Amino acid sequence: MDRDIVVVSNRGPVSFVRERDGSFTPKRGAGGLVSSLAPLIEGTGTEWIAAAVSDDDRAAAARGMVDAAGFRLLTLPLDVDDYRMAYDVVSNATLWFLHHGLYDLPRRPRFDRHWREAWEGYRRVNEAFADAVVDTAPRDAVVLVQDYHLALVGAHLRDRRPDLRAVHFTHTPFCGPNSIRVLPEYAAEELLTGMAAYDACGFHSTRWARAFTACCNEVLGRAPRTYVSPIAPDADDLRRVAESDAAAAAGRDLDARVGDRRMILRVDRIELSKNLLRGFLAFDDLLREHPEWRERVVFFAFVYPSRVDLAEYQSYRQEVEGLVGRINAEWGTARWTPILLDTDDDFPRSVAALARYDVLLVNPVKDGLNLVAKEGPLLNRNDGVLLLSREAGAWEELHDVAVGLNPFDVSATADQLHDALSMDQDERHRHAAALRSKAGARAPRDWLDDQLRAATAETPG
Amino acid sequence: MDRDIVVVSNRGPVSFVRERDGSFTPKRGAGGLVSSLAPLIEGTGTEWIAAAVSDDDRAAAARGMVDAAGFRLLTLPLDVDDYRMAYDVVSNATLWFLHHGLYDLPRRPRFDRHWREAWEGYRRVNEAFADAVVDTAPRDAVVLVQDYHLALVGAHLRDRRPDLRAVHFTHTPFCGPNSIRVLPEYAAEELLTGMAAYDACGFHSTRWARAFTACCNEVLGRAPRTYVSPIAPDADDLRRVAESDAAAAAGRDLDARVGDRRMILRVDRIELSKNLLRGFLAFDDLLREHPEWRERVVFFAFVYPSRVDLAEYQSYRQEVEGLVGRINAEWGTARWTPILLDTDDDFPRSVAALARYDVLLVNPVKDGLNLVAKEGPLLNRNDGVLLLSREAGAWEELHDVAVGLNPFDVSATADQLHDALSMDQDERHRHAAALRSKAGARAPRDWLDDQLRAATAETPG
Repeated sequence: MDRDIVVVSNRGPVSFVRERDGSFTPKRGAGGLVSSLAPLIEGTGTEWIAAAVSDDDRAAAARGMVDAAGFRLLTLPLDVDDYRMAYDVVSNATLWFLHHGLYDLPRRPRFDRHWREAWEGYRRVNEAFADAVVDTAPRDAVVLVQDYHLALVGAHLRDRRPDLRAVHFTHTPFCGPNSIRVLPEYAAEELLTGMAAYDACGFHSTRWARAFTACCNEVLGRAPRTYVSPIAPDADDLRRVAESDAAAAAGRDLDARVGDRRMILRVDRIELSKNLLRGFLAFDDLLREHPEWRERVVFFAFVYPSRVDLAEYQSYRQEVEGLVGRINAEWGTARWTPILLDTDDDFPRSVAALARYDVLLVNPVKDGLNLVAKEGPLLNRNDGVLLLSREAGAWEELHDVAVGLNPFDVSATADQLHDALSMDQDERHRHAAALRSKAGARAPRDWLDDQLRAATAETPG
Repeated sequence: MDRDIVVVSNRGPVSFVRERDGSFTPKRGAGGLVSSLAPLIEGTGTEWIAAAVSDDDRAAAARGMVDAAGFRLLTLPLDVDDYRMAYDVVSNATLWFLHHGLYDLPRRPRFDRHWREAWEGYRRVNEAFADAVVDTAPRDAVVLVQDYHLALVGAHLRDRRPDLRAVHFTHTPFCGPNSIRVLPEYAAEELLTGMAAYDACGFHSTRWARAFTACCNEVLGRAPRTYVSPIAPDADDLRRVAESDAAAAAGRDLDARVGDRRMILRVDRIELSKNLLRGFLAFDDLLREHPEWRERVVFFAFVYPSRVDLAEYQSYRQEVEGLVGRINAEWGTARWTPILLDTDDDFPRSVAALARYDVLLVNPVKDGLNLVAKEGPLLNRNDGVLLLSREAGAWEELHDVAVGLNPFDVSATADQLHDALSMDQDERHRHAAALRSKAGARAPRDWLDDQLRAATAETPG
């Protein structure tokens, strides 16, 4: 590979904290992309362009391109109103909802004049990213543009920097033609035209790639090249965390709390697409229909807040907490709390829990990939069973080894929890070994290589 | 046509009212199917099998097949619990929601043990209909099975009455493969297998037929023959109503209330798919953005209650009434109420209003056909403009003459209301003439002929 790489994403690999002396300390960010990709290219001086998110980021951005944490980092001080409209209104409250099928369509969305302005903001933010690429990308570089926040960047590169190759990767699902019609036509057309301007568009699963192609064919009458490249966790990094003192301490605490009971686990953001409510209802149904599990199983839910500024997420969290309270009140006893809901974001503790589960419940209504479904089997040392939604992108890789569930079918999920808890040791062992092998079949390097191949491929692939 | 016809539908062409002397008086039913089909076959002694819905119907059903209102009518006294589960839980609260895309998927549906039982009830109701067909259909008859309530009837006919030809017609939209996956697998598979057992399956538009075929290919790996046959209003019947004394009186009343203002009209059930909220929000936006229309336009909304036993419909109605109250409070003046919401179901008055509108708003989020979109242009004598959702099945027939709208785009709809109200007389006249011609291009007879052709076609069509 002799082309330089430029990574373009909404959030960068580091954010900045301003110190008292006026200097800026870089702080490593979180998220699937950063945790998978950053270790691969850290120290190579790869250029990474991201938005300035916090006030400190914005102050740091005034310095232009800086060397930080092994990257050449360009943080963009975008217009605050434009960024809020692009990030909150268009990206998170519209495109995220659309691609995950989260809309209550009789009521939402309501595209109004405010939304039209937000779309202009989204366009300007994308243009600002494109300007930065045009101004700073090394000659003949490969530009890796990440996710639905930045769908339109590629459209501005082709004429101004024909030396570049640019691919876009969508980390969410992609909606089908019936759903893309929900968007105002100007937005649907501009979005898909923007994506069609890349050399190729990548997705975590064949299903999302096909949905995108179908949308393009319906709206544009043509479709760009696509590629399928599921991302993978960094197994070495996970192992390091698992062996850390923090994880060991958390593990001892978990062991004490679980005792000789079985452990069902979920680890998720508090996010409408993650299907927390039906997961708890399935557990409720398990305790009702299979009384033999009362006091013999604990459901650990490590779910941490996300997008707390959006009203939908606030009310969803309240519903989740209310439901957990009701279930615990109904089934709990003096010595047993059925569901242990914890909303602290504590990665070492999550890693310790993933090493210990008997059953890992991953039941999203829709999910681009779901990294936990791969991290769990890689970390688990208890021959745990994975119940995985068929609506997660990871289902494509794991479908012949995971137990597949319909995320809308509460009583079927309850029965599958029962079956998983009842599985004999031999079967668990075979199941876990097969899962571990499939979940570890790809590494972050494979994902990066796929991007570069897709960018430089000469023929439609 | 030398084959007898048997019509099978949930609601029959008449229901029965028990008189004091114990006899039963037939009362003509409502609904698009009955109003289009019944006049064609009334008096021919055609067999029609329907569910006994009311208590009086159930009492009347004990008489078996009766001659009533020109039909040979067999009303089935189904098990009450089975019928409630089949009609309320499966048909109206599940299949209707699924095909119209009405689910708030992070929360609903929740398939539980109760739903599994309801599916058994749906199956038994379909079997009871099939038994009645098997027992009573004339030899070599064509059986016309109507709508999503009765998808499984055909599966029971093929072996037991191979002399019959049976077609199924879906009056709703049909969901795509992404949505059929929401159903429990046993239900999705049985539903599609049941439909695939008919000689052919019909739909109001190509879009729904394709979605059904895509579902069958994905779930079953094969698809049955489909046909597209949009239903049509009975123009003669509409004309008779328009010339009735009741319509004339309603018309005089409307004229007095409208005065010299313009009139926007909608006529709908109070139904989540009809998109009442965004229609009123668009009117609200019109009054805000185009102040010249204040006091110069009245929005008549003749919307009548439906499925009042379902909580979703109760809360939707409250939202609608609350929104109308808010808009009227914001813009209304001493001499002008912007929105006149009337929830009486008064067909002659609706007909009188359809003759008079300046703009007819038909903006469903999804609709199998939408008969009002055809009735309006046929009845209107004011060169009125039709704003029609692209998500209505009728869009396929009317797309080159109606003004197409995105039902989710409130401000675009507001602008289209403004444009429609501002259209000059020549353009209105051309628009209305073209609409009238397209809306009247088909008659109920065409729909019936299509069913019979589809049933007796020897080759895939």
